[in-house]
Amino acid sequence: MPLTPDQQAEIDAARSTPRQTLRAVSEGMEARLYHAHPVLDHGFVRVIDYMGDDAAICQAARVSYGRGTKAVSNDEGLIRYLMRHWHSTPFEMCEVKLHVKLPVFVARQWIRHRTANVNEYSARYSILDREFYIPEPDALNAQSVVNNQGRGEALSGEEAARVLDWLKADAGRAYDHYEAMISQEGQQGLARELARMNLPANIYTQWYWKVDLHNLFHFLRLRADAHAQYEIRVYAEAICEMVRDWVPAAYGAFEDYRLGGAVLSAKGLACVKRMIAGEEVTQETSGMSKGEWREFMGVVG
Amino acid sequence: MPLTPDQQAEIDAARSTPRQTLRAVSEGMEARLYHAHPVLDHGFVRVIDYMGDDAAICQAARVSYGRGTKAVSNDEGLIRYLMRHWHSTPFEMCEVKLHVKLPVFVARQWIRHRTANVNEYSARYSILDREFYIPEPDALNAQSVVNNQGRGEALSGEEAARVLDWLKADAGRAYDHYEAMISQEGQQGLARELARMNLPANIYTQWYWKVDLHNLFHFLRLRADAHAQYEIRVYAEAICEMVRDWVPAAYGAFEDYRLGGAVLSAKGLACVKRMIAGEEVTQETSGMSKGEWREFMGVVG
Amino acid sequence: MPLTPDQQAEIDAARSTPRQTLRAVSEGMEARLYHAHPVLDHGFVRVIDYMGDDAAICQAARVSYGRGTKAVSNDEGLIRYLMRHWHSTPFEMCEVKLHVKLPVFVARQWIRHRTANVNEYSARYSILDREFYIPEPDALNAQSVVNNQGRGEALSGEEAARVLDWLKADAGRAYDHYEAMISQEGQQGLARELARMNLPANIYTQWYWKVDLHNLFHFLRLRADAHAQYEIRVYAEAICEMVRDWVPAAYGAFEDYRLGGAVLSAKGLACVKRMIAGEEVTQETSGMSKGEWREFMGVVG
Amino acid sequence: MPLTPDQQAEIDAARSTPRQTLRAVSEGMEARLYHAHPVLDHGFVRVIDYMGDDAAICQAARVSYGRGTKAVSNDEGLIRYLMRHWHSTPFEMCEVKLHVKLPVFVARQWIRHRTANVNEYSARYSILDREFYIPEPDALNAQSVVNNQGRGEALSGEEAARVLDWLKADAGRAYDHYEAMISQEGQQGLARELARMNLPANIYTQWYWKVDLHNLFHFLRLRADAHAQYEIRVYAEAICEMVRDWVPAAYGAFEDYRLGGAVLSAKGLACVKRMIAGEEVTQETSGMSKGEWREFMGVVG
Repeated sequence: MPLTPDQQAEIDAARSTPRQTLRAVSEGMEARLYHAHPVLDHGFVRVIDYMGDDAAICQAARVSYGRGTKAVSNDEGLIRYLMRHWHSTPFEMCEVKLHVKLPVFVARQWIRHRTANVNEYSARYSILDREFYIPEPDALNAQSVVNNQGRGEALSGEEAARVLDWLKADAGRAYDHYEAMISQEGQQGLARELARMNLPANIYTQWYWKVDLHNLFHFLRLRADAHAQYEIRVYAEAICEMVRDWVPAAYGAFEDYRLGGAVLSAKGLACVKRMIAGEEVTQETSGMSKGEWREFMGVVG
Repeated sequence: MPLTPDQQAEIDAARSTPRQTLRAVSEGMEARLYHAHPVLDHGFVRVIDYMGDDAAICQAARVSYGRGTKAVSNDEGLIRYLMRHWHSTPFEMCEVKLHVKLPVFVARQWIRHRTANVNEYSARYSILDREFYIPEPDALNAQSVVNNQGRGEALSGEEAARVLDWLKADAGRAYDHYEAMISQEGQQGLARELARMNLPANIYTQWYWKVDLHNLFHFLRLRADAHAQYEIRVYAEAICEMVRDWVPAAYGAFEDYRLGGAVLSAKGLACVKRMIAGEEVTQETSGMSKGEWREFMGVVG
Repeated sequence: MPLTPDQQAEIDAARSTPRQTLRAVSEGMEARLYHAHPVLDHGFVRVIDYMGDDAAICQAARVSYGRGTKAVSNDEGLIRYLMRHWHSTPFEMCEVKLHVKLPVFVARQWIRHRTANVNEYSARYSILDREFYIPEPDALNAQSVVNNQGRGEALSGEEAARVLDWLKADAGRAYDHYEAMISQEGQQGLARELARMNLPANIYTQWYWKVDLHNLFHFLRLRADAHAQYEIRVYAEAICEMVRDWVPAAYGAFEDYRLGGAVLSAKGLACVKRMIAGEEVTQETSGMSKGEWREFMGVVG
Repeated sequence: MPLTPDQQAEIDAARSTPRQTLRAVSEGMEARLYHAHPVLDHGFVRVIDYMGDDAAICQAARVSYGRGTKAVSNDEGLIRYLMRHWHSTPFEMCEVKLHVKLPVFVARQWIRHRTANVNEYSARYSILDREFYIPEPDALNAQSVVNNQGRGEALSGEEAARVLDWLKADAGRAYDHYEAMISQEGQQGLARELARMNLPANIYTQWYWKVDLHNLFHFLRLRADAHAQYEIRVYAEAICEMVRDWVPAAYGAFEDYRLGGAVLSAKGLACVKRMIAGEEVTQETSGMSKGEWREFMGVVG
């Protein structure tokens, strides 16, 4: 586990001093605050702060829609209605701040989600720790033979061992040289902003990441998806669990309409109607390309 | 004051039930939560929720800069350093959610600040109230003769009276017809989404507005400025008071470096150096245009 | 038509002077440049500038995916693949700048799309023209009895006439007083930034609006939809025609996957599979609420 | 130089086929289109497309400010006025698309500017080239002794040689193993999305980066600044040259008001006024901290 005794003591201290507030409180999220949820071999996600709850989503929606929304009898129904009709602004009224420790190559994917606030540990100012992501054997996969950006089956024993040896040895040596370059013992010592360039993409970094619930759902839909790279998916899955505890109704709607749902094209929709009417539809009669048909059958087949 | 007994009862209820939290708490902001701060004749601003405090800004900065920031002895010094050097991300780690009631023409200026979340009362769904902004006599000014987008002195008695009569009569008549058009008594009743087009820009609307502290400071710098239109400036000034109570150190730095500070151009800086050296600099010898020189003298003169 | 002879002369001049460029050129868009496409009674949309074409989308995608995309045999196939898999960044590589004249109540909906650049005509600086949107008889509808934010059938003769009289008379009187208030003949003249508050929401404003293709598609999906208010939908439809001429392959994919497609929830997907298998599914056995089932049947029924 | 004969042929082809357009054309930018401007040892910046010119900035401003801006006699004066008064939206009306090849650790700083569109070469799909940034001797500096995030003087001979040896050897070995791990000769071959984690931060990546002129100026102010890391500053400086050719008036205003200008705090402004009045002001009598006074004297001293 990635926490030092100092870090654990800090978390314990933060959790030992409840204070009074008049703000919306989510009990499910209070239980999670500050605890580090371990991810990969040295990473973690932990909730530092949050704003709002399921009721806050509805309150914001009722500002917008006033009497119009009273027909929906309860908060859960309203939240499902909002999600189904792509009303994004009420979900933007909730916000969460996470502390994440993650390998640099995962951070590089993650940061592509631009509608969020980030404070990353700076390797210009500070010295990075000697911590590298080394995959577990079952996460050490061959290149997929059908998907240019995917993985196939796990590597076999000897090849796997060779890969692990290289990953460990190269990371260790790179870090040794990083330390030696910045050392000021008997030499000037290379600038940290330069020395960091020697470090590989599996070194761990950390950041504070703050995002609203609408944009978080967008992130989770893409990154908790089966096609996402495993190393970012495990972070997304950990965050899914937190969101479920934080805003259970919104998370339920998200699961039904986004994670578990699917988009059909106009062509796909026409095929579905013909299939429901009992017609036998094939790729040739569907109007779709082979790739598209394969994906379509994956959804409705 | 704009609150009905129902609204006041709702605020009293929300304020009567403190709960426990492990999150960062700002006592100054807790004292303000839900209270409606009146602005203009029927408007208000009230804090619905907030995330973070001065310490949270420093905590985020220390994630980024690690040991590098320990030289700054205390939180206030660190916050001043961050503000001075345009480090925006630590300030983005605080967030506030406001409920604002404001005239439509003010809302139209306000919404130009895009980096925020908004849920506005919908006049497609719901019926707007009969409430219009009518300026106080000392806010009823003539067009400025020097500034195309400013105001000059207050209008004199008879002209002022005529203006007020028109504003009141036109708003009242427009609302009467709005009500008559949507009425379903003895007629079909015009769609609300159409009827609203008859209403003037001084009618009040309301929204939930959520923004991070960095972008809020940007809004306040522009809208609490002496050149901002009076009717939005009074909202900005009310929010300034709230932010001062919420994050006093950050607000202090903002006042010193942004609200009270000034930007000098390369030309202006060169003039300042010559003036400090005792030289008499005039517009002719400054290299500036007349307009620019006038503004420059307004800053350093 | 909303153009004065001066404006038409300006457009003719702009169109009479082609210049050479090395940039990507879309012939379909060149044919549209500067022409004003009329919308509603006094509004228009016209293209001022654009960046990129279908090939530019593919070029950007090939930077990202390199050899991985060569399997897709042609640009149209690649664009369909990108749209189907929610790859948004290649579409962001195209940009368009429009000049739009539109009623204020439409502008207020439009501006909610935040990821765009806007320069609006300023009624603080300048004087608005006497131009108001007055609906055609077939766009003068009653409030919907089934949808809180929709319209029902057209108003009948006498009620319609009364509504039109009010809209015209109130707008005319409001503008007369606006003019009288800012007049400097024999009086000081009210500041323009104040006088504008007397003007109703059907007065026309205008702006330059610049947006990338990904965000434009998002706007069009919501605003060219049958549930959008008619007065903004006609703008969206006019823009759809322009986009079709600009990037025909991207627009085709957008039509198939977004405009003509549909999202099914996990529950909906399960029902579709049962229905394809020959089962008779009803609302009661679907696990959906009544409202959700009605919408679902609207999609697949 | 980083271009292969194939790449040069592609550029030559793109530059050999001018086409006609009715859009705004910047001759200065046409001369630059597609040419690769070399940066660092293997990097480059080249302009792929642009939208707008100095006149387009003014045209957008005149939509907003109408008659109000006619007092400013010419485009250059108007642009200086807009820059001085922080009118950002007219500058947003210009857009540029760049193709950049850059080391990963530079890309990680660059991407922090969120208001831009990016398509980066994907190391999940594709194989990275064997190209690493190795600093020139005069860019191989020691850690600054006064600034936690800066560099001091160049390293002396033997230490410099050792650093260069390590950087080259570690990069070469990491790439050898990367190649060996993904090889499918006699083994399964590790997935590319995993193998990339072995590569150091000085490997080159590339992307298409599209940004509006306002946000580009913000990027350039921070990254062409003397405090920016040298390796990103050289990119910013190369882009400055391009912008100067593209929109000379806007770039001139940017140089005067942003790059060459300075922000004074309220305290600093008070000191300047006392100094102009002939008073001897010291840190003790300034009300500033030592660090702040040192920075202040750096500006006005």
